[in-house]
Amino acid sequence: MTLKLYVDRMSQACREVIIFCKLNGIDFEEVHIDLSKRQQLSPEYREINPIRQIPAIMDGRFKLSESHAILKYLACAFPRIADHWYPADLYKRAKVESVLDWHRTNFPRGPGSYTFYSVLAPTVGLPLNTKAAARTEKMFIACLATIESVWLQKKGRFLLGSDQPSIADLSLACEIMQLEILDEKDRERILGPFKRVLKWLDDTKNAMAPHFEEVQSTLAGYKEKVQKQRNTLGSKITQSGRKPVLQSNM
Amino acid sequence: MTLKLYVDRMSQACREVIIFCKLNGIDFEEVHIDLSKRQQLSPEYREINPIRQIPAIMDGRFKLSESHAILKYLACAFPRIADHWYPADLYKRAKVESVLDWHRTNFPRGPGSYTFYSVLAPTVGLPLNTKAAARTEKMFIACLATIESVWLQKKGRFLLGSDQPSIADLSLACEIMQLEILDEKDRERILGPFKRVLKWLDDTKNAMAPHFEEVQSTLAGYKEKVQKQRNTLGSKITQSGRKPVLQSNM
Repeated sequence: MTLKLYVDRMSQACREVIIFCKLNGIDFEEVHIDLSKRQQLSPEYREINPIRQIPAIMDGRFKLSESHAILKYLACAFPRIADHWYPADLYKRAKVESVLDWHRTNFPRGPGSYTFYSVLAPTVGLPLNTKAAARTEKMFIACLATIESVWLQKKGRFLLGSDQPSIADLSLACEIMQLEILDEKDRERILGPFKRVLKWLDDTKNAMAPHFEEVQSTLAGYKEKVQKQRNTLGSKITQSGRKPVLQSNM
Repeated sequence: MTLKLYVDRMSQACREVIIFCKLNGIDFEEVHIDLSKRQQLSPEYREINPIRQIPAIMDGRFKLSESHAILKYLACAFPRIADHWYPADLYKRAKVESVLDWHRTNFPRGPGSYTFYSVLAPTVGLPLNTKAAARTEKMFIACLATIESVWLQKKGRFLLGSDQPSIADLSLACEIMQLEILDEKDRERILGPFKRVLKWLDDTKNAMAPHFEEVQSTLAGYKEKVQKQRNTLGSKITQSGRKPVLQSNM
């Protein structure tokens, strides 16, 4: 039976699982769980993942959720996956685990992420929140500084000084590439100071070509959607002479 | 060479690593990195963990940070660690990874945690923050609801329906037991509705006796410290006739 991925490419956690499968020739069926329609809350999806989050997978009768757990499972369960993705060596694997764990502990996640509060929230029917965006931007920049000054300090193009990418490179790159949804100016302001991070992102894109960019390109569609919503709001301001309420209390 | 643990028992992430070592007879030296004195920021500690967070370990010349990564490393690197902690079986391990990943993605972490904002912040020289505490309480309660309704739904006393605890039980239990720092009333308000969680916490304490309670007991000391600080502030209010500033803008 073909592996099923329950995903929405709007989510970076979903994109990393799709990219991993494509890069490693894992055959899969993509089941779209539309976040903008809150399909992750449907009774049907509850049968797949009672936590009602995406991504999730079904491999035969085996169901699994949480993107890092899925990546590790896929790396071990499918044949001929190159060792660099999730090294069998105890020490190398421990270091990859350390980056993955650090990623989860430190990056502002899900509805707490900078792009969600500053751009994406209206696409799932929620208001923008500039205060929360400012709070998460601060955390985001601190994480970029750690990648620049710690994880990319050694020789080698990838995290931990490796010559080939691991699932930690894939996951972190997808997290950071979420910034593609921002205006060029905003993205430059946040990423510009981190030269090593920028080079590593380029190296990662190249090493994972063409699938990384292809899956990532979904963001362009969302960017357009967001721009349209902004324009509509803009015209409403002109008509009524006052700003619409965009601030939540989260 | 003896394994070195760089820890402060005030942190639940540190407590889980210490408890794991004690439960499994792993000989270790406990190096106290005093968070209240910001020793994690010292140049000496930077040599151990450039990210300047605790816990970290040094096993011979091998350095590792992040508590989940450390637990997995210890479970694999040391001999005779019982399989239930971090099962070798692909499917069982994937499920444990899923809980650990969910834990990191969903629980409000570190300085974002409820107990930090509502009680502990002054012990490291930061102000209390009732708004942030309310925000993180909401997330904390949602997590407890998921443990109650998803992770503890199957037969077996432990998470995922297991008869014996895994590192996911240890880590989540330490996270939740951080609530011990609260007043009885507050703790009862948050934990009271979750009967399965309460039973699982009891089962976890019993399965990990006496080490779980012994290491956990450090919190009692902090609770006393916090109480003294509150009393001091209380007397200041009486003397000056106005409340001290306890609110930050975080």
